[in-house]
Amino acid sequence: VTPKSEDFSRWYLDVIRECELADYGPARGTMVIRPYGYALWEGIQRWMDAKFKTTGVENAYFPQLIPYSFITKEASHVEGFSPELAVVTQGGGKTLEEPLVVRPTSETIVNHMFSQWIQSYRDLPLLMNQWANVHRWEMRTRPFIRTLEFLWQEGHTAHATAEEAEERAVQMIDVYREFAEDVAAMPVIVGRKSRVETFAGANNTYTIEAMMGDKRALQAGTSHNLGQNFAKAFDTTFLDENGKTQHVHQSSWGVSTRLIGGIIMTHGDDVGLRRVLYTGPHTTALPPALAPIQVVVVPIAQKNKDKESVNAAASAVVKTLTDAGVRVKLDDDERNSPGWKFAQWEMKGVPIRVEIGPKDVANDACVLARRDKPGKEGKEFGVSVEPSALVGKVRETLADVQSALLSEARAFRDENIVDVTSYEELKAAIDAGKWARGGWEGSDADEEKVKEDTGATIRCFPFDQPAGPHTCLMTGVEAKEVCLFAKSY
Amino acid sequence: VTPKSEDFSRWYLDVIRECELADYGPARGTMVIRPYGYALWEGIQRWMDAKFKTTGVENAYFPQLIPYSFITKEASHVEGFSPELAVVTQGGGKTLEEPLVVRPTSETIVNHMFSQWIQSYRDLPLLMNQWANVHRWEMRTRPFIRTLEFLWQEGHTAHATAEEAEERAVQMIDVYREFAEDVAAMPVIVGRKSRVETFAGANNTYTIEAMMGDKRALQAGTSHNLGQNFAKAFDTTFLDENGKTQHVHQSSWGVSTRLIGGIIMTHGDDVGLRRVLYTGPHTTALPPALAPIQVVVVPIAQKNKDKESVNAAASAVVKTLTDAGVRVKLDDDERNSPGWKFAQWEMKGVPIRVEIGPKDVANDACVLARRDKPGKEGKEFGVSVEPSALVGKVRETLADVQSALLSEARAFRDENIVDVTSYEELKAAIDAGKWARGGWEGSDADEEKVKEDTGATIRCFPFDQPAGPHTCLMTGVEAKEVCLFAKSY
Repeated sequence: VTPKSEDFSRWYLDVIRECELADYGPARGTMVIRPYGYALWEGIQRWMDAKFKTTGVENAYFPQLIPYSFITKEASHVEGFSPELAVVTQGGGKTLEEPLVVRPTSETIVNHMFSQWIQSYRDLPLLMNQWANVHRWEMRTRPFIRTLEFLWQEGHTAHATAEEAEERAVQMIDVYREFAEDVAAMPVIVGRKSRVETFAGANNTYTIEAMMGDKRALQAGTSHNLGQNFAKAFDTTFLDENGKTQHVHQSSWGVSTRLIGGIIMTHGDDVGLRRVLYTGPHTTALPPALAPIQVVVVPIAQKNKDKESVNAAASAVVKTLTDAGVRVKLDDDERNSPGWKFAQWEMKGVPIRVEIGPKDVANDACVLARRDKPGKEGKEFGVSVEPSALVGKVRETLADVQSALLSEARAFRDENIVDVTSYEELKAAIDAGKWARGGWEGSDADEEKVKEDTGATIRCFPFDQPAGPHTCLMTGVEAKEVCLFAKSY
Repeated sequence: VTPKSEDFSRWYLDVIRECELADYGPARGTMVIRPYGYALWEGIQRWMDAKFKTTGVENAYFPQLIPYSFITKEASHVEGFSPELAVVTQGGGKTLEEPLVVRPTSETIVNHMFSQWIQSYRDLPLLMNQWANVHRWEMRTRPFIRTLEFLWQEGHTAHATAEEAEERAVQMIDVYREFAEDVAAMPVIVGRKSRVETFAGANNTYTIEAMMGDKRALQAGTSHNLGQNFAKAFDTTFLDENGKTQHVHQSSWGVSTRLIGGIIMTHGDDVGLRRVLYTGPHTTALPPALAPIQVVVVPIAQKNKDKESVNAAASAVVKTLTDAGVRVKLDDDERNSPGWKFAQWEMKGVPIRVEIGPKDVANDACVLARRDKPGKEGKEFGVSVEPSALVGKVRETLADVQSALLSEARAFRDENIVDVTSYEELKAAIDAGKWARGGWEGSDADEEKVKEDTGATIRCFPFDQPAGPHTCLMTGVEAKEVCLFAKSY
């Protein structure tokens, strides 16, 4: 594995390979998600799906193949997505009369259906989500972060009023924030995208932006207030309470397997030796709330006479923890040494390791090692295996790891955001690899100029604004809001 | 809704529309799965996914787009699937150098990856599953049963020995049988496909075959012993314990959204008035183990003064049942009458309806109505709402409905299977719309002749064989096994 300080990008690819998170597919830019990576996706799905449902959203499934003509109906949508489309032109051995687009997103086909399902205000709000694969013909790809095909959820809602659509868009970006911070231990800044960066077809796009270990920004989830743009293109209307025909107001929102890349690239620091999912003097763990394996139990018996009792004690610990709802794995594979196993599970970022040897058995105890604290500092001896004591200890430790990961990542991020008041200061901050925060009233052209000069883009206008007044860093006029500039993935 | 006896096919489409299970997509042969239909799929996924994992299978995700050349590597596979392929020829605005096939199934790309992941016998068995969408360019489509795109799971395994691959193939068809019978209340006959009907690229295909309400057979799930066919085409090899290079032995197995169509078409009878998911003198329910809503609670208060107490009692029942893990819905929408609600939830096949009126409140009781027994016969008054009594009553009733559905469907099926000993008898049985069971040693050409003459195909050679000796119905020679002929979906 390439040291992270030397080449972050290569380190990232090495971690993905060594941890068996993903692999390259045969077609350019495609990715195979291997079981350990997919288990992270299942954790994301489990949390998100339950959360969506508590907000009244139901799952559905829309066809993947969309008539080409649909894409062209909403003007800015076609402009944004046309260059990225994969197109089916042959089916059943024949050339199709109308080519079919492999969905890059589903606003068009959703509206085609919504326009048939929605008649009256009584059919509103309509709140749907689908778990699906989408394709975008990206030129530069990177596993999890940007791939030709990726897995995601896309929520689509229709409402009677503009206010409800706006509320839903804001509600869902907050769901994503909650997931990022409380489950993935990935601190995010929530805000509104600039006009230039707004989704093709939306009035407003809200985003959660996270800082990766190399200080580049990752857009980790977005939620759009679509206004009536698609409704007008597809004539999605309803009869209101006064019998008047109106277009619905809509939102759409999504997160994808990109989150997995974000999780890998978040839990690092700038020292250069600490590596996510990889052993070293400074180490870290997968966030316990999401880790496919929260606790690995390793029985250690050098002598044959100890094996039976040690294995029995290890199995009892596994049962105790499983019964308590902890995701636990017993590694009793006799072909590998304990040292090899420790390295293996440290590499995979398992938050807690429990070791049990003959002496522990004699003391009704075990050794508990935290993945996020190196060496002796993170190791506790003589931990009781009495069920309620052990479960309490493990739960407390998992919670500690979870909050430590979040606060460390948050501190790292906050250290690397610089307040700027001029374009020179912005350029210096971006040059230093940091994020720049400052007042902004610039034009779209000004924003493009910053990108050309520095490579940085406006990540968002944060919801949480510092007290004003602010001065536009570019034009010097008074600015209503500050925004964040950063280089991004 | 078209009466079932008049036109089963149209009745099926009417039920799907009226129950809002699915709708037609804009591209020919595609389907939108609406929330109530998707909730059934989620129920199928929940059960299957947990079951697969108990057998050591892990989930992964393979790219959907497969280089065209892959499909041609296994000779019988390309022959089977070529006519059904959707092909992407354009990406990012350019014509692709090599067209990409939209996966019809993933054996080829799975082997491409397995050949990289598997080196030694220590990497075996490799047991993977993916939940995915697949496309097959079918000419005649029908919602859930045969659509251009469908959702499914496909398991793919690699083993060191032929025996293990065979065991896994048989194990998984039994998992499907267990689901069909215990969860979907859909009796199935498990058996081996004839050579003609074997999966393109497999040595043996195992199947579960169910009888629909019109007595046509539905292949509801298949499991294949792939032997070393794909392993040889893709050079998927391992070093065995003696250091010798060998090809792996493989299985693959899948069920799809077709199961939903099977569930709808199973729980009917030949009387003609009984309709699945639809109200009538003879009625039935969704299998409780799978029903998205197991109990609907309807508060009934005509007078304003009763509303508060009735709604409070209804909410208490909902809480009691929810806490007990029952999937329950409160329908307290004041815009609809109780009668309208009863019809609505009967149509949707909710197994139990709980009614609560002012008199029930006064008696700490409720009325419990079974969806599968019409009128008074299925209605019980004065059911206690005391939590443990109510939960016990509801659980018992759900179990009763579940087993009644299975045994009724099984009786219907068994009545409609005819033992035949000659081709004339077979033709008569098929003519009468029944299944024919008889000894078979015919050739592939004989099998094709039966299909041409009668429209029936060999559904399977059942694992469960009657005592011999048997006589081949076509050739008169002694037959090792009996098989089942039927018309099928």
